[in-house]
Amino acid sequence: MSSTALTQVRSLVSPRRLTEFFAPRSIAVVGASDTSGWARYVFAAAAATRFSGPLVPVHPAHETVFGRPAVPSLRDLAAPVDLAFIMAPAQAVECVLDDAAAAGVRGAIVLASGYAESGQEGRALEQRLSDRAAAHGITLLGPNCLGFLNAHACAGPFALTVPLPLLPGPVGIALQSGALASVVLAFARSHAIGVSTLVTLGNEAMITAADVIEYLVEDESTRVICLFLEEISDPVRFAAAARQADLAGKPIVAIKVGSSPAGQQAALAHTGAVAGDDAVVDTALRRWNVIRVRGIEEMLCTAALLGYARRPRGRRMGVLTSSGGACDIIADRASAEGIEIPPFDPATVTAIAPYVPPFARVANPLDVTGYFLANRRTSALTAIDHALDAAVSDPGLDFVLFAGPALPDTRPPEHRLADLIDERIGWLGERVAAAPIPVICVNSTCVDVTEYGRSLLTHRGLHPLAGLDLGLRAIGNALRWHEGRGRARATAARPAATATTAAATAATIRDLVRTAPGAGPWPETKARELLAALGLPMVPAELVTSADAAVEAASRLGFPVALKICSAQIPHKSQAGGVALGLATADQVRTGYQAVRAAAEPVAGASIDGVLVAPMRTGGIELLAGVTVDPAFGPVLAVGLGGIWVEVLADVSLRLLPVDVAEVARMLGELRGAPLLRGTDLDALARVITEIGDAAVLLDGQLRASGSALHSLEVNPLRVGADQIEALDILIVTPSRTESR
Amino acid sequence: MSSTALTQVRSLVSPRRLTEFFAPRSIAVVGASDTSGWARYVFAAAAATRFSGPLVPVHPAHETVFGRPAVPSLRDLAAPVDLAFIMAPAQAVECVLDDAAAAGVRGAIVLASGYAESGQEGRALEQRLSDRAAAHGITLLGPNCLGFLNAHACAGPFALTVPLPLLPGPVGIALQSGALASVVLAFARSHAIGVSTLVTLGNEAMITAADVIEYLVEDESTRVICLFLEEISDPVRFAAAARQADLAGKPIVAIKVGSSPAGQQAALAHTGAVAGDDAVVDTALRRWNVIRVRGIEEMLCTAALLGYARRPRGRRMGVLTSSGGACDIIADRASAEGIEIPPFDPATVTAIAPYVPPFARVANPLDVTGYFLANRRTSALTAIDHALDAAVSDPGLDFVLFAGPALPDTRPPEHRLADLIDERIGWLGERVAAAPIPVICVNSTCVDVTEYGRSLLTHRGLHPLAGLDLGLRAIGNALRWHEGRGRARATAARPAATATTAAATAATIRDLVRTAPGAGPWPETKARELLAALGLPMVPAELVTSADAAVEAASRLGFPVALKICSAQIPHKSQAGGVALGLATADQVRTGYQAVRAAAEPVAGASIDGVLVAPMRTGGIELLAGVTVDPAFGPVLAVGLGGIWVEVLADVSLRLLPVDVAEVARMLGELRGAPLLRGTDLDALARVITEIGDAAVLLDGQLRASGSALHSLEVNPLRVGADQIEALDILIVTPSRTESR
Repeated sequence: MSSTALTQVRSLVSPRRLTEFFAPRSIAVVGASDTSGWARYVFAAAAATRFSGPLVPVHPAHETVFGRPAVPSLRDLAAPVDLAFIMAPAQAVECVLDDAAAAGVRGAIVLASGYAESGQEGRALEQRLSDRAAAHGITLLGPNCLGFLNAHACAGPFALTVPLPLLPGPVGIALQSGALASVVLAFARSHAIGVSTLVTLGNEAMITAADVIEYLVEDESTRVICLFLEEISDPVRFAAAARQADLAGKPIVAIKVGSSPAGQQAALAHTGAVAGDDAVVDTALRRWNVIRVRGIEEMLCTAALLGYARRPRGRRMGVLTSSGGACDIIADRASAEGIEIPPFDPATVTAIAPYVPPFARVANPLDVTGYFLANRRTSALTAIDHALDAAVSDPGLDFVLFAGPALPDTRPPEHRLADLIDERIGWLGERVAAAPIPVICVNSTCVDVTEYGRSLLTHRGLHPLAGLDLGLRAIGNALRWHEGRGRARATAARPAATATTAAATAATIRDLVRTAPGAGPWPETKARELLAALGLPMVPAELVTSADAAVEAASRLGFPVALKICSAQIPHKSQAGGVALGLATADQVRTGYQAVRAAAEPVAGASIDGVLVAPMRTGGIELLAGVTVDPAFGPVLAVGLGGIWVEVLADVSLRLLPVDVAEVARMLGELRGAPLLRGTDLDALARVITEIGDAAVLLDGQLRASGSALHSLEVNPLRVGADQIEALDILIVTPSRTESR
Repeated sequence: MSSTALTQVRSLVSPRRLTEFFAPRSIAVVGASDTSGWARYVFAAAAATRFSGPLVPVHPAHETVFGRPAVPSLRDLAAPVDLAFIMAPAQAVECVLDDAAAAGVRGAIVLASGYAESGQEGRALEQRLSDRAAAHGITLLGPNCLGFLNAHACAGPFALTVPLPLLPGPVGIALQSGALASVVLAFARSHAIGVSTLVTLGNEAMITAADVIEYLVEDESTRVICLFLEEISDPVRFAAAARQADLAGKPIVAIKVGSSPAGQQAALAHTGAVAGDDAVVDTALRRWNVIRVRGIEEMLCTAALLGYARRPRGRRMGVLTSSGGACDIIADRASAEGIEIPPFDPATVTAIAPYVPPFARVANPLDVTGYFLANRRTSALTAIDHALDAAVSDPGLDFVLFAGPALPDTRPPEHRLADLIDERIGWLGERVAAAPIPVICVNSTCVDVTEYGRSLLTHRGLHPLAGLDLGLRAIGNALRWHEGRGRARATAARPAATATTAAATAATIRDLVRTAPGAGPWPETKARELLAALGLPMVPAELVTSADAAVEAASRLGFPVALKICSAQIPHKSQAGGVALGLATADQVRTGYQAVRAAAEPVAGASIDGVLVAPMRTGGIELLAGVTVDPAFGPVLAVGLGGIWVEVLADVSLRLLPVDVAEVARMLGELRGAPLLRGTDLDALARVITEIGDAAVLLDGQLRASGSALHSLEVNPLRVGADQIEALDILIVTPSRTESR
């Protein structure tokens, strides 16, 4: 696409333009007929969203549709409409767009499938479609989508069932699977979670997920953004949108499917095996501070917490329940989420004590028991309410989890009781709003909010989470979001010093790249030269081509030594028998030399550069520091336990590159094996690993400049001793020709 | 308790007696008054369960209670009742029991708290209470409980709210937290999951969780058993009950709280750190084939699947949906549960093809799309129904997951549409019942089953699971239960050969036990003697007390060698500097000897037995094989990656002892590090580890016979080379005096 065309498309999907698009005041439904199920849905959705503007069927052969007068074509409209919902088959859509342009319509939804999702021809058709829309200045949603609804603007050009009642609220939603929209709305309805705008994205020919995120960031009704993602086709745009959401304090909660490892392939470098597609996506989402959830319930429950409640800003939780069993479940779930339940302050204990029965223990988590609830009904407030009154002032707590409020299914027929409940909920709403710390209400299990509950709680600002399990996961998600804020905005640029270093060695690297093999693994000697040029610490080594030379090298380097075959065709040297370790005498070196040479013989056509002699290292911890270049997300750094442990334990931390030293230190801290690094110079280690990452980025750039690319650069093991950090083995791989991009 | 008394108590809680207890035809409520909230609940619960028998309030001061005529004492009853629900305060309960006995009452529920849960005095009171009941021949539930309800027998002496309607069904429930009962019933009600008997266990003074399990195993209405457990106080009885449930094909699904690691302590042996309390519980539950779940929703959803649907017997799942997004979510969740989604058989593809639109791909998982649903409404069956018709005959599938059936919230006002739905659901019910493989229906998310849905589906035998997330977890649980069947019944006896071996060496072991330290770690030489007596493979070693002797020993054993200090006061030799490795010359041995001796000096009062000299071993894999003796569950075997990796990686598999060789082989297979063992003699390794377990059991027995016990016996590392398995280090610890049991 030319940059002019690109600029034009971007103006058609700007937040300002989408604000207009997602709040149409008049809609035409093109292709609607009495026998079209889709049209029936759209007309029903208009009623469900209480759409009050003109809704005009357009059909060449029908005078009326569902009782409404139809026009034969958009060109026949008495006045232009804001939006055309086009239900025509794919081959007719372009003509309809022409009609729409002629009629002054600025927005269109295309329902038809048979575009990019159906193969090569469809892709061409889709490109023509979006070009045509762009040329006409029409903003286009779809194709292969089911429309959208905007609960606040009361607009719903939406070809699916809308579960009633549709509650307007703070949750904006964009879905790459349209059929899930009804499912999402049904759960939201059942749990009194209000929606702002819900968009089915379809094929994203023009409006993309990133565009909708940017619109929702600007949308005043939206406080939190939910996504269902099958793929992230443009990570750069997506990252920018996520950064804006983070800056605006609007959390993104996303289901990203495709986590099953079925599609992952074996790779030459270990890094490829541990940095699989889904692990890279996961790393990217974490970097962008997008909360990844695994199901619709968790997504909406997390969104409800972030959209309605005051957000918790610390991990110290006070827990108030009227059941010991609930306390136990909460404690276990909190532990799984890393949420603390510290003891109450003495003043809190003193304040709560009068309101619980003598046999109850005042402690966090608190079980007020059902005693007083069963034994008096004269005051509106119950024991748990008095406990809340005290706990919100506890200086040791960041927030309070309040179990309930428990309510009967329907308004009690006894007026006195019903009034007491009204009074209690009123008090609770005020107390929660005025509390010095956030109060999060939670139901015991995931059951629907009743009509009575909704009417009583919603307008008091009370929105209990859907059960202890989902509730604690939502709180964990909210805390992770809070703690991750700013991460998405962290500068992606590396310090200038590195750039200078790079410049000084650029010539060397260019030389290496020029003489490197076009595809496949580099000879290790060449890889060592590259890292040496960048000043990275490596075990000393000499390349020899005879047993005598090996003995001489060993004498210079100091016994015992290790030998390894050096051949681009034998990347897995150990498995091939091309490595001999701990050779302590000249004789052992001679024997070892013959052995590793012999190992190369079965490899047909192997070009042997020689045998590397290096002093034997023992002890210390062996790490992996590797970079693999993902087709969509770019270079990804993997740090983990190295040597034989990499793939067995998969104890690896990943980051999109570039990273700074502090981030690498955090990566090391995330490893299960982190305790093994105690006593080592972690700063120095983090610096070395950061430089390995920089080296990969630099090399990838140089390779791309010469028409190739980096596949992976891996140091394994990177040996970490008490006073020495050294690369023992280095593997650099460029893509085979079919992989080249 | 004397054995006669024990026999009597057991007869009061036998399944036959509990069958009578849990189906009372007449109930007295002792202590009921119009101002008692508990009594109000009990009378309401009687109505909710449609209890039709006499329900008599007993109160010394009231003539009527809630409008019913009261009697002053149980002795004044005109006819004996089956059950007395005693709400009197703790101090009055024993007198009420006397009254009950006099009135011929055979069952009692005690609500009062202030018993064992409140400390020493309460424990004595509780013992008196159960003794009194036993002496009277009264079966007693509680104290500190809220009663029970039996939906099939229409009886509910139950002091909590019963959410309506109460649906009778296959799920038996026993809860150690009474207040959760309403919560459990509310979720069951909302999701149309029917209950048989629900019991709040209270303090289990007489009726225990194990007794209720045995009753539910006998109960014909119960097909699956749900438990909420705070503790398992009598593992032996519990295990026996679980074995019966397994034998009867009635799965047990349990929440066991206390999984947060707060309470776990540092321990001398590594095994203690990795075999924490909750890990042992987890191991025990797995052994008994009890499905452990983490929340109420998962418990009931799993129970609904196991109680209503035909149970899946294999992991190959066919998936039928009308949404690509649902397919994606299902694929991810299935992958997490280890459930396969194999390709359809070609015949299945051919049979389905005519019923999906041309642009849909017929593959497993299948998305039939909403196309035909939106575009025709003349036949009762939709595309997904036709797909079901074909998929159930696919020879490559073990079961089919069917998304839906999707239904409107209420019966559609158009009769034609409502009739079509009736017809469709009727067909589905028949097809599911007649299918060659189980068909599991699942809703998209966890929302309530509507009144319309319940009336339509339940009597057709259709019980969709509560959402994809819970549904897939339930299926995973059901498969684990199926695969674990028989495990609970596996003989606990070890092969006779071992017993013979043990007998032959019993004298040696008795000698060792007699001369061992009374508490704390054994000297390693002694530990080596024990394992030698049992024929376990150990690295050769000599104990020396001078540098010269060390050099001589090293010459005999072969250079290089390892030295380690041998002292009961220095169990963590490496950390103390008491180990020197890889000593290749006489000089190095001399220096090493001085160094490890010097390491002992700072340990005040350390009694040094000498220094062990052993040949240095390198290469191979280091494992941990350790046994720790749990106070409640007895000896527990831990197998994992050893050396420095144990606590860092916690890659450990646990089992209650004894185990057989096949089970140890399975333990090895469970390790993340299992691939590291490829190429080693796994049979021989499993045999050695089995013998280490046997050694610990034998030693524990001998120690107990002499008034002590085993705390832990640990081989770490157990070195596994290509052709040699050897214990390199052995630690045996007996409890300190305060720990002794």
